[in-house]
Amino acid sequence: MDFSEKIAHWAKIVNEKLADLVVPKNSPEATIYEAMRYSLLSGGKRLRPVLSFAVNEILGGRQDDIIIYTCALEMIHTYSLIHDDLPAMDNDDYRRGRKTNHKVFGEDIAILAGDALLNYAFEIMLEDIYAHMDSPDLPGRINAARLIAKASGTSGMVGGQVVDLESQGRNISYDILEYMHKCKTGALIKAAVQIPLAINNVTGEYEKALLTYAENLGLAFQIKDDILDIEGNLEEMGKKTGSDSASGKITFTAYFGLDKAKEILKSTVDAAIESIAVFGDKANFLTELAGFIAERRS
Amino acid sequence: MDFSEKIAHWAKIVNEKLADLVVPKNSPEATIYEAMRYSLLSGGKRLRPVLSFAVNEILGGRQDDIIIYTCALEMIHTYSLIHDDLPAMDNDDYRRGRKTNHKVFGEDIAILAGDALLNYAFEIMLEDIYAHMDSPDLPGRINAARLIAKASGTSGMVGGQVVDLESQGRNISYDILEYMHKCKTGALIKAAVQIPLAINNVTGEYEKALLTYAENLGLAFQIKDDILDIEGNLEEMGKKTGSDSASGKITFTAYFGLDKAKEILKSTVDAAIESIAVFGDKANFLTELAGFIAERRS
Repeated sequence: MDFSEKIAHWAKIVNEKLADLVVPKNSPEATIYEAMRYSLLSGGKRLRPVLSFAVNEILGGRQDDIIIYTCALEMIHTYSLIHDDLPAMDNDDYRRGRKTNHKVFGEDIAILAGDALLNYAFEIMLEDIYAHMDSPDLPGRINAARLIAKASGTSGMVGGQVVDLESQGRNISYDILEYMHKCKTGALIKAAVQIPLAINNVTGEYEKALLTYAENLGLAFQIKDDILDIEGNLEEMGKKTGSDSASGKITFTAYFGLDKAKEILKSTVDAAIESIAVFGDKANFLTELAGFIAERRS
Repeated sequence: MDFSEKIAHWAKIVNEKLADLVVPKNSPEATIYEAMRYSLLSGGKRLRPVLSFAVNEILGGRQDDIIIYTCALEMIHTYSLIHDDLPAMDNDDYRRGRKTNHKVFGEDIAILAGDALLNYAFEIMLEDIYAHMDSPDLPGRINAARLIAKASGTSGMVGGQVVDLESQGRNISYDILEYMHKCKTGALIKAAVQIPLAINNVTGEYEKALLTYAENLGLAFQIKDDILDIEGNLEEMGKKTGSDSASGKITFTAYFGLDKAKEILKSTVDAAIESIAVFGDKANFLTELAGFIAERRS
């Protein structure tokens, strides 16, 4: 399989698993499953699961061992998008080319659908941990769930969202800009790499190389996001553009200007690629992925 | 210690532990810790932790073994109140006699503070599980976290909230009313009892007796809540009353009328007390607690 076939293959696997994990039910709370599925199965890029699968392959891990954790991470990513889009937050009407969750189900259900996805992420991980109580794989699974919790909470994604909100319309230092993105987008992207590392119990040189890759990939992803907010368009992006600058958010492009931001993007991608040289040809997919992140148009 | 001293004693222990778990920080995301603490340390009744401690005492468990789990449950309860109070949900300005979270910190931070508390509940449980990796206590802890996740998600609290939202202004059957309350309030109250059962690895007759008690206590709590929504006042309740009937919510009082609701409350309390007869005098506190729930004025 070439690069795009591999992405499509892995995205399909995770899409099918997510659809299996959140099934429509004919119970009094049926709406919540509908609302969860609406956003969860709306065909995102699945960058985080693809990253987990790619790293897992390099480490020689079994896909079945990590899939619950990478689906949990995708649920957490999705909950954060639902809550981010709310009128009280970014107030976005479109996401991935479709109406946002609260536009379809109402704000109240959208808040609960986000809550439900976050909760369910931990529910499926804890069920998996419970099911592996007597297995030698138990410690790695517990560690993966623990790292995901840290990445999505106040010292990770939620913390970054708070800094983002509070920085709007203010002059912030580059340190704060970097800290915000490390938390807001970077933490979950890093967690995608931490999952296979934890479950395959990999430490040392390989761990260090892959975590450096993940950090640079996360940073590149965010710089590119900021560039797309200026250069992208609704049709390709599936969401409104220009909204970050309009709301006075500090972005890489606002901070450095477009040209300098593109330069930093390039050097960040180079740093990501360089960090995984230790894996030789086995890292080809990750190398292409870093380029793909920088070149993407949505 | 008599009944009220015991409640005060246990509430103090959990208040101190919660304050230790969520500490103010001088980091860029400092506001989130403030917002979390504002609602978490606002002096609720601590019914769920008190219930966990009381059951744990009957079972001869150590308080240190359950405190993280009961604090996690209280964080989940608190997050649900913050989100429930939002304009898009119940739109309440007061809670426990103070302004609601979004009234103080804004809707955006309130949404994130709720998300953060839910996430942090799982974070502290997973850290505790991780720290007990080689302990014989590990399985009970994993089971407790798993049961809490089930209780707070779509098959528990969140599911009940959805049914509650969707039942407003509609005629619903008694089955749905009961289902809603079993999920919305009952699931977390039951989880408070499941924590010491799981961690002390108690099954059989004792488990059955205590779960029956918990189910009846949860139902009694909700019936009393519905009665207080009619008979209580802002001063004693610390929040607006009459809002459930005003918003067309189906309540026990709306369904049965006030007198009949009081009768059902009494028989539910009796059923709770009867179920724990097997513990003899050791169940005195739980017996008083059931009466206290029915007699409370806030």
